[in-house]
Amino acid sequence: MKLKERIHHFLYDQKLKHKLYVIIFESDTPAGKLFDVILICFILLSVLLVIIESLKGLPTYLATPFVIMEYIFTAFFTFEYITRIYCSPQPRKYIFSFFGIVDLLATLPLYIGLLFPGARYLLIIRAFRLIRIFRVFKLFNFLNEGELLLASLRESSKKIAVFFLFVVILVTSIGTVMYMIEGTQPNSEFNNIPNSIYWAIVTMTTVGYGDITPVTGFGKFLSAIVMLIGYTIIAVPTGIVSVTMMKEYKRRMEKECPNCHRSGHEDNARFCKYCGHQLEE
Amino acid sequence: MKLKERIHHFLYDQKLKHKLYVIIFESDTPAGKLFDVILICFILLSVLLVIIESLKGLPTYLATPFVIMEYIFTAFFTFEYITRIYCSPQPRKYIFSFFGIVDLLATLPLYIGLLFPGARYLLIIRAFRLIRIFRVFKLFNFLNEGELLLASLRESSKKIAVFFLFVVILVTSIGTVMYMIEGTQPNSEFNNIPNSIYWAIVTMTTVGYGDITPVTGFGKFLSAIVMLIGYTIIAVPTGIVSVTMMKEYKRRMEKECPNCHRSGHEDNARFCKYCGHQLEE
Amino acid sequence: MKLKERIHHFLYDQKLKHKLYVIIFESDTPAGKLFDVILICFILLSVLLVIIESLKGLPTYLATPFVIMEYIFTAFFTFEYITRIYCSPQPRKYIFSFFGIVDLLATLPLYIGLLFPGARYLLIIRAFRLIRIFRVFKLFNFLNEGELLLASLRESSKKIAVFFLFVVILVTSIGTVMYMIEGTQPNSEFNNIPNSIYWAIVTMTTVGYGDITPVTGFGKFLSAIVMLIGYTIIAVPTGIVSVTMMKEYKRRMEKECPNCHRSGHEDNARFCKYCGHQLEE
Amino acid sequence: MKLKERIHHFLYDQKLKHKLYVIIFESDTPAGKLFDVILICFILLSVLLVIIESLKGLPTYLATPFVIMEYIFTAFFTFEYITRIYCSPQPRKYIFSFFGIVDLLATLPLYIGLLFPGARYLLIIRAFRLIRIFRVFKLFNFLNEGELLLASLRESSKKIAVFFLFVVILVTSIGTVMYMIEGTQPNSEFNNIPNSIYWAIVTMTTVGYGDITPVTGFGKFLSAIVMLIGYTIIAVPTGIVSVTMMKEYKRRMEKECPNCHRSGHEDNARFCKYCGHQLEE
Repeated sequence: MKLKERIHHFLYDQKLKHKLYVIIFESDTPAGKLFDVILICFILLSVLLVIIESLKGLPTYLATPFVIMEYIFTAFFTFEYITRIYCSPQPRKYIFSFFGIVDLLATLPLYIGLLFPGARYLLIIRAFRLIRIFRVFKLFNFLNEGELLLASLRESSKKIAVFFLFVVILVTSIGTVMYMIEGTQPNSEFNNIPNSIYWAIVTMTTVGYGDITPVTGFGKFLSAIVMLIGYTIIAVPTGIVSVTMMKEYKRRMEKECPNCHRSGHEDNARFCKYCGHQLEE
Repeated sequence: MKLKERIHHFLYDQKLKHKLYVIIFESDTPAGKLFDVILICFILLSVLLVIIESLKGLPTYLATPFVIMEYIFTAFFTFEYITRIYCSPQPRKYIFSFFGIVDLLATLPLYIGLLFPGARYLLIIRAFRLIRIFRVFKLFNFLNEGELLLASLRESSKKIAVFFLFVVILVTSIGTVMYMIEGTQPNSEFNNIPNSIYWAIVTMTTVGYGDITPVTGFGKFLSAIVMLIGYTIIAVPTGIVSVTMMKEYKRRMEKECPNCHRSGHEDNARFCKYCGHQLEE
Repeated sequence: MKLKERIHHFLYDQKLKHKLYVIIFESDTPAGKLFDVILICFILLSVLLVIIESLKGLPTYLATPFVIMEYIFTAFFTFEYITRIYCSPQPRKYIFSFFGIVDLLATLPLYIGLLFPGARYLLIIRAFRLIRIFRVFKLFNFLNEGELLLASLRESSKKIAVFFLFVVILVTSIGTVMYMIEGTQPNSEFNNIPNSIYWAIVTMTTVGYGDITPVTGFGKFLSAIVMLIGYTIIAVPTGIVSVTMMKEYKRRMEKECPNCHRSGHEDNARFCKYCGHQLEE
Repeated sequence: MKLKERIHHFLYDQKLKHKLYVIIFESDTPAGKLFDVILICFILLSVLLVIIESLKGLPTYLATPFVIMEYIFTAFFTFEYITRIYCSPQPRKYIFSFFGIVDLLATLPLYIGLLFPGARYLLIIRAFRLIRIFRVFKLFNFLNEGELLLASLRESSKKIAVFFLFVVILVTSIGTVMYMIEGTQPNSEFNNIPNSIYWAIVTMTTVGYGDITPVTGFGKFLSAIVMLIGYTIIAVPTGIVSVTMMKEYKRRMEKECPNCHRSGHEDNARFCKYCGHQLEE
C-alpha cells in the first residue's frame, strides 16, 4: 500500500521531526523565535477573548466573529499540541510534563463546552501557557530565579502543611464558638457553622471583607483576639519561607571540594567535611 | 467473692493491657493502624455532624438520626477514653497530657448539653483530635516539623508577650482618642470606648472590616497614621519568629567535633571543617 | 520657727526618703511588692473606669460614685507622683524620664477636664503606667526582650523613616491620580484629594475598609496595581526589622576577648579581631 | 552687536555659573542652605495648594488668589529649572537624571492644564521633589540607607518579576473560575471576568474591601482557599526582600584579610579572625 508506506515514512522521518522540534520546542533559531512570539500573541489574544466575551452589553454583531475566532484558536492549539507530540523525541515524557498537561487542557474546554456551555470559560487555563514567555526572551536567569523560589517552597511544604492543618482546626473551632455566641442574634450573619468558619478565615488572614461582622460585645471581644492571633501567626509562613530561602541561597553559593566534588561547604571552611581534603581558597 | 476477683484480675491483666496499648496508642501493627484509621474517620464524621446540624433548613426527618449518631459517637469516644486510661502504663501522665485533656473534652459537651442545650456545639473540640492524623500515616517528619515550629514559637513567646502588652496599651489609647474625636458625631459608630478599641484592633491588624469607619477629617487623618503604624509593627512578630526559627534550625543542625570541640558543622558533614578530624555520625 | 524647722527636717530626712524609695521604686521587699501590686490594681481600675463611663445607657445613679472614684484615683496618683519626686535621689532625672512624664500625664487630665470636659478621657494615658507590670513580677527577662525589640527598632528607624517618606509621597501621588479618574463620577466617594489619599493609605496598607471603593473600570485597574505594590512593599519594613533583629541578636551572643575585653567575635573566631589575642574556646 | 556679546558673555560666565551651582545644587553654604529651605517650603505650599483646591465648598473668593499663587509657583519652578540647566557643569546629565525629569514634570502640568483642565492636578508630581529634603538637613546617612533599600529591591527585582507573573496568571484563573461559579446568581457583583479578577486581587493581597463578596456556599469555600493561598504567598516577597537585604548588608560589611585573603570580617574588625594578621583600615 503506497499510502501506508508514506504514513509510515512520515511518522519516522527523523529529519523533519528534528526540524520541527527546533522550531517548536527551542527558540534559538529565527524560525523558532518567530514561532514562539506568534504563539504567545495567540495565547494572549485567546485569553483576552475569554475575558472580553464575559462583558455584559457587548454588541450582538460581535458574537459570531468571537465564536469563529475561538474555534480558530482552538484548532491552532490542537494542531500545535499534536505536532509537539509528533516531533518530541520522548512523546510520553512531554505528555505527562507540566507543560504537556497545560497544553492539552488549553484545547479541551471548547470541545467540552459543546456539551456544557459554561465549561468554555475554562479556556482561561491557556494563561498558564504564558510561563513560556521566559524562554522566548532568553530569560534563563528568570527561570533560575523561579526555580529557586519553587525549590524553597517545595522544601518548606512539610512545615507549611503542618501549619495549615493547625489553621484549619483553629478556624473550625473559632467558627463554631462564634456561631454559639453570635448565632442567637436575630438576622445574624453567623447563621450556620460553615458561614462562621468562612468568617474566621476572612478574619484570621486579615482579609476582612466586612460582609459578616460580630455585633455583640462578647463577639467583638473574641474577634479582636482572633485578629491578634492571625496577626501573629501570619509571621509563621513568612518565617518558614525566609529561612528556607536563605538556606537554599546559601546552598547554591557554597564551595565545591576539589577531591570528592561535593559542595555544601561554607564560605570559611578549610577542609572538606565529607572527605577531609583541603579546600582551595 | 468471685466477681470481685474477676474484676481484680481484669484490672491487673498486664497482657491484655499491653495488647490494647499496642492497638490504641501505637499504629505499627495492622490492628493498631486499622483502629487509628477508624478513629480518624469517626472524628471527621462527628465534626461534620456538628457542622451539618447547624445548617438551617435541614429536613426535620434527619433530626432523630442525627441525635442518635451523636450519642453513638459520644459513647464510642467515652469508651475509648476509659480504655486508654485502663491500658496506659502511666494513666495519670496520659490524663494530664495534651491529648488526654482533648480526649476528655471531646466527650463531655454532649453530657453538659443535656443541661445547657447550646454546649453541644463544643463537640467541635473533637477537631483537635485530628492532630493524631500525623501518627497514623507515619508522618513523623511532619511531627518533627511541627515540633520545630512549636519550639520556635515557645522561644519567641516572651518577646511576643512584651509586644502584645505594648499593642494592648496602644490600641486602648488610640481607641479612646478616636472616641473623643469621632464620638461627638451624630450616629457615630464610635459610640463608646470598647467599640473604639475594637476598631483600633481591626485597623492595626490590617483586617479592616469597614463596619466602623471614621467620618471626620481629623479622624481619617489619625486612622491613616494608625494604619501606617500597624503596617510597620506587623514586621515585629515576623522578625521575631524568623530570627527564632533560624536560630532553632541552626541549633539542630550543628555537630561538635570530637577533636577540637568546636561546633558549627552541618547535618551532613563528616569531617571537622576546622581541623579535618572525622566527626561522629 | 518650729514649723519651718520641722519642714526642713522632713525635706532632708535621708532615712525616710530611702525607706520610701525602697517601697515605691523597688519591689524586692514585701512592702515594695505590695505597693506595686496595689498600684497596678489602681491603674487597671482607673483605666476600666474611663472605659465603662463611655458606655451609653449606664444607670444614672452610678454617675456620682464614678466621679468620686475618679477624684480618689487622681488624688492617689497625684500624691504618689509628689512622693516619687520627694524620695527620688535625683528628682530631676525622674521627672524627665519616660515614666516620670507618664506619671505626670496620668494625673493632669482630670484637672484639665474641669475646664474642658472632653479632656477627661485622656486619663486613659494611665494605661502606659502598666508597663511597670514587668518589674513587679520580676520579669527582668521580659524587660530585656523589650529592650532588644526597642534597640532593633531604634537601629532600623533611619531606614524606616526613608521608607515612610517614600510611602507618603507615593500615596499623595496615587490619591491625586485616583481623584482625577474617579472624582468625575456622580456621588463618588473620591470627592477630594485628602479623601483619595486616605483611600490610598487604606488600600496600600491592605486594611481595605471598603468605605471608599473605585467604581470605574480604570479606577479598579489602578487600585489593583496599588494593591500589588502595597503587597510587595509590605515586605520592606519586615525585611528591615528582621535583618536588624538578627544583627542585634548576633551582637549580644558574641564572644568577649580575654585580653581587651571587647566583644563582637563570631562563634567560630579564634583570634580577637581587635587586638589579635587568642580567644578562649 | 553689544547685546549679543553680553548674552555670549553671560552664557559662558564660569564664575557666575559656579556661584549659582553652589547655591542651587549644594547646601553647604548659608546661601545654599537658605535656598534649599525656601525651595522645600515652596514645594510643600504648592502641593498643599493642589490638595486644598480639590476640596468642595471652598469659598469662591479664594479661587482667584489660588490661581495666581499657582502661576507664581510654576513661574518660580520654571525659572529654577532653567537656572539649574544653565549652571550645571553637565546640563545633559542633569536633564536626564531622575531629579531633572521630576523638576521638568513639576512645571509642565499648569501649561498643559491650559488645554486640558484636569491635567492641573498632575502638579502633585512636585511631591517627588521633596526627596531633596534629605540633602538639606545633611542626612547623608538617610540617603545611604535609602540606597541600600533601593539596591536590595533592584537585586530582588528578577525574583519579584517571576513572582508577579505567577500572581497575574493565578488571579486571572481564579477570577474566571469565580465568575463561572458566582456569575449565574441574580444581581451578582461577579458580573464579568475583569470584575472577578479585581476581586481575586483584592482578596489575595488581603485588602478585602468587601465591595464584591461571594454569596454561594461553593464561592465562599473557594474564596477561603484563595485567602489561605494569599496568606501563604505573601511570605514570598517578604522572604525575597529579607534575604536580599541581609546579603546586601553582609556584602557591605565585609573586609578581606591582606595575609590569608579570606573575607568575612565585620566592619569594626582590626585583626583577621582566621590568622590573627592585622587588617587594613
